[in-house]
Amino acid sequence: MKSNNPVINQILDAYKPVWSINHATSLMGWDFETYMPRKGTEERGVADSQLHLLHKQLLLSKDFVDLVELAKKQQDGLNDVEKGIVRVLDRDITRQLKIPKELTEAESLERIRGNMVWRQAREKSDFKMYEPYLKKMIEIKKQVADKIGYEKHPYDVLLDTFEEELTVDDLDKVFGVLTPQIQKILKKLVDSGSPFCKESNLGKSKYDVQKVDELNRELLNLLQYDMERFRMDVSTHPFTEAMGLNDVRITTRYEGTDFKRSISSTIHEAGHALYHLQCDQSFSVTPVEGGSSLGLHESQSRFWENIVGRSRPFVQLIAPLIRKQVSFANQATDGDLYLYFNNVKPDYIRVDADEVTYNLHIAIRYEIEKKIFGDELNISEIPGFWNDRMEQLLGVRPTEDSQGVLQDTHWSSGLFGYFPTYTLGNLVSAIIAAKLRKDLKNYEENIRKGDFEPIKEWLRLKIHQHGSVYAPKMLLKNTFNEEYNPDYFVTYLETKYLGS
Amino acid sequence: MKSNNPVINQILDAYKPVWSINHATSLMGWDFETYMPRKGTEERGVADSQLHLLHKQLLLSKDFVDLVELAKKQQDGLNDVEKGIVRVLDRDITRQLKIPKELTEAESLERIRGNMVWRQAREKSDFKMYEPYLKKMIEIKKQVADKIGYEKHPYDVLLDTFEEELTVDDLDKVFGVLTPQIQKILKKLVDSGSPFCKESNLGKSKYDVQKVDELNRELLNLLQYDMERFRMDVSTHPFTEAMGLNDVRITTRYEGTDFKRSISSTIHEAGHALYHLQCDQSFSVTPVEGGSSLGLHESQSRFWENIVGRSRPFVQLIAPLIRKQVSFANQATDGDLYLYFNNVKPDYIRVDADEVTYNLHIAIRYEIEKKIFGDELNISEIPGFWNDRMEQLLGVRPTEDSQGVLQDTHWSSGLFGYFPTYTLGNLVSAIIAAKLRKDLKNYEENIRKGDFEPIKEWLRLKIHQHGSVYAPKMLLKNTFNEEYNPDYFVTYLETKYLGS
Repeated sequence: MKSNNPVINQILDAYKPVWSINHATSLMGWDFETYMPRKGTEERGVADSQLHLLHKQLLLSKDFVDLVELAKKQQDGLNDVEKGIVRVLDRDITRQLKIPKELTEAESLERIRGNMVWRQAREKSDFKMYEPYLKKMIEIKKQVADKIGYEKHPYDVLLDTFEEELTVDDLDKVFGVLTPQIQKILKKLVDSGSPFCKESNLGKSKYDVQKVDELNRELLNLLQYDMERFRMDVSTHPFTEAMGLNDVRITTRYEGTDFKRSISSTIHEAGHALYHLQCDQSFSVTPVEGGSSLGLHESQSRFWENIVGRSRPFVQLIAPLIRKQVSFANQATDGDLYLYFNNVKPDYIRVDADEVTYNLHIAIRYEIEKKIFGDELNISEIPGFWNDRMEQLLGVRPTEDSQGVLQDTHWSSGLFGYFPTYTLGNLVSAIIAAKLRKDLKNYEENIRKGDFEPIKEWLRLKIHQHGSVYAPKMLLKNTFNEEYNPDYFVTYLETKYLGS
Repeated sequence: MKSNNPVINQILDAYKPVWSINHATSLMGWDFETYMPRKGTEERGVADSQLHLLHKQLLLSKDFVDLVELAKKQQDGLNDVEKGIVRVLDRDITRQLKIPKELTEAESLERIRGNMVWRQAREKSDFKMYEPYLKKMIEIKKQVADKIGYEKHPYDVLLDTFEEELTVDDLDKVFGVLTPQIQKILKKLVDSGSPFCKESNLGKSKYDVQKVDELNRELLNLLQYDMERFRMDVSTHPFTEAMGLNDVRITTRYEGTDFKRSISSTIHEAGHALYHLQCDQSFSVTPVEGGSSLGLHESQSRFWENIVGRSRPFVQLIAPLIRKQVSFANQATDGDLYLYFNNVKPDYIRVDADEVTYNLHIAIRYEIEKKIFGDELNISEIPGFWNDRMEQLLGVRPTEDSQGVLQDTHWSSGLFGYFPTYTLGNLVSAIIAAKLRKDLKNYEENIRKGDFEPIKEWLRLKIHQHGSVYAPKMLLKNTFNEEYNPDYFVTYLETKYLGS
């Protein structure tokens, strides 16, 4: 990118080595999960931490910080893209400057220790074993919040880390509406003996991994992904990693049974990938080439995974492919497959949750995180609180910590404030779907025919092209005149699952 | 590694970010040739050049250079490993300091330009088209030689780049013996109508890529490679890349016919890999974790590829695997396979050359490079000189430049002085084989049984464990009391091909 503003040009030039280190660490992250020989772990650890240190040095070097400060003073003369560049960099620099080096190091160390103990604790289903490590990490995070500073609630600082400008006030409003509404829908579904609640046999048989891999590749073909800018590999936990705007990679998973999980992972990650692939090409090698926020990113993956991928026309579209590649599904009707993809079952594990109950899992984690950082809950009380709320909201009570409080990796990695972005993504995906249906008259018909171009182009214009030029709240306001409004999502669930 | 010398410890610590950048660029190089989506090329180019610049900055930073200077002054108090660390770093720093930035940049630029034009010129078999670019690159390399400085011959500087302390005097001695001796062997073979000269039909049929891939993996299994520290992928041009001592990767090639080329590539690259895998583990993340030189590295790959891999007991060992995986070879006797693997045929293309004629190709390139840098040959005279020498040494005269002077990529990439290391590798592989046979009484029997541990352990002790602690000439002297003596190789060829 070339700007008319000489300071911005200097920033972009000085940013190139920073970007290059990001590029390298992204590739190292991708490689770690896909192809790296296991015993390379220690050496990879050295390289990763050294490159992160170099990254920090370059970002906080006096020359670079001065340039960004200079650009901030010229704000009025900048266009939106230039403002976005300054905003993203200033945000990063400010946070990194405020957090003392010792705290960063303590967190790094605790992340490794805590994660190791959490793994063992989960295996043994023993929260007590993990408790002191969780306590330590929370103490570090409280210090981080204090160092960065906040107006109302220390948790606001952590939320803002993952979703710019997100606050407890915002989320109280969201979950205040969402939680009771979902509970209502869930009760109606269960009470009425809805066909959505009847478990399908399709998830129980073993599938041929190679054939489901072919199926996934046929899906990417159907969605017209440009394999010269994109690829798919395999990992235990699916993810998307963008090395830049023209090298975007996803992974999928093959667990051997319940093939919809592999298909859904593929479509989910491909949704994330599209956000990068459709970003304005002139943003390549700049600070604004990524998505606006985790919530916005998740809105893209969940839109494709659920709203498109679990819709009746999409299931009809891919049903022949499924019958071809999954031997035991060759007698399943389109209706059988639709119900299989959309089975609703309140259960313990978040990552396996259906569209209806998923956000109740997040609501519980949000409540706990808010209480922890508001000093309203002791660490030792978390498991009890967790189980009580599971019973109240989902009607199931975990009998083991591994099914409850120990199930997620986030806390052990210091990711407090991350969970809510999953729910924001779901809410925004429903906002998008509602707006898109108004603009594209043949929306369902296009999906049934496998013509995804109009949807992709609409997403490109409204969201993708902007990269991270706009903060998420501003993007939602500018493009849709909306906030994190939960009503669209509630309506979506009601329409789909209760037919109302 | 921890040293008792505080300066060395400071050096090792300050080297970690340098090592980490090497680690990242190695991974990027591996990824570029194996998995990277094609349109990621431009972004990868930015990252690669930026990381190389950062690497240079770190290496030439005043603090780091001062540390190395300080250690040099303490030479007498250092042990061999510490001396090795200082030697490797000092060598790198000195060369990078002497070459002005403008010259490095000019070479970079010319490398890209020249390589692009060379590709087109090779396709069109048009040397004239490439000539001005070759001229420019040679001018740059002459300037590099002048800047670094030399005693006898400017070409010595370029040779030393790839093989420490190698000189024109050394190579004149080598080729002075080698070239006539090989010609003599070749003449005898051709004149006597040797069975080695009869072309096999086994190279002509199409093979099943997946099955030959299985075969290659069975070979690695047979050679007992630890797949937790090592992996194999596919690329057009096979290579080895070490991300560190515990993450070493090779690639192999599948062209569809002539399956021995795929097998030989696998064994060749695995030989390179073993050099890293068997290095002293305490050298991990230090400047001495690589091999001693290109020549020594090539001695390892050629030893396994040719001296072991094309030997009668090895072919006998793997014959059942070949018959299982290569359908049209299932009737071939061990003798048929042995002759197929060892077919001798004077021909135009170096990379396809057999063991006997290979070094004649190198002799010609050496003569030309020496004459160019000694101002004894004009650029425009190269094709004529090339063809004349091919006819004199190999008895075949290229009719097109694509079969002659344009066949190799090296010159267009500025790699002058590189070719001779291939021959040194062959010579040293024969030295190794002779010494090893004396030490291991059951050498052939072990190969026939597939017991490679004694050979691997011998190589580890004599060569691999030392990493690049010793310069190649010193390693050869210390370990074998030898120089780049061509006699062993000549004797090896005579024994194998003439049975004398």
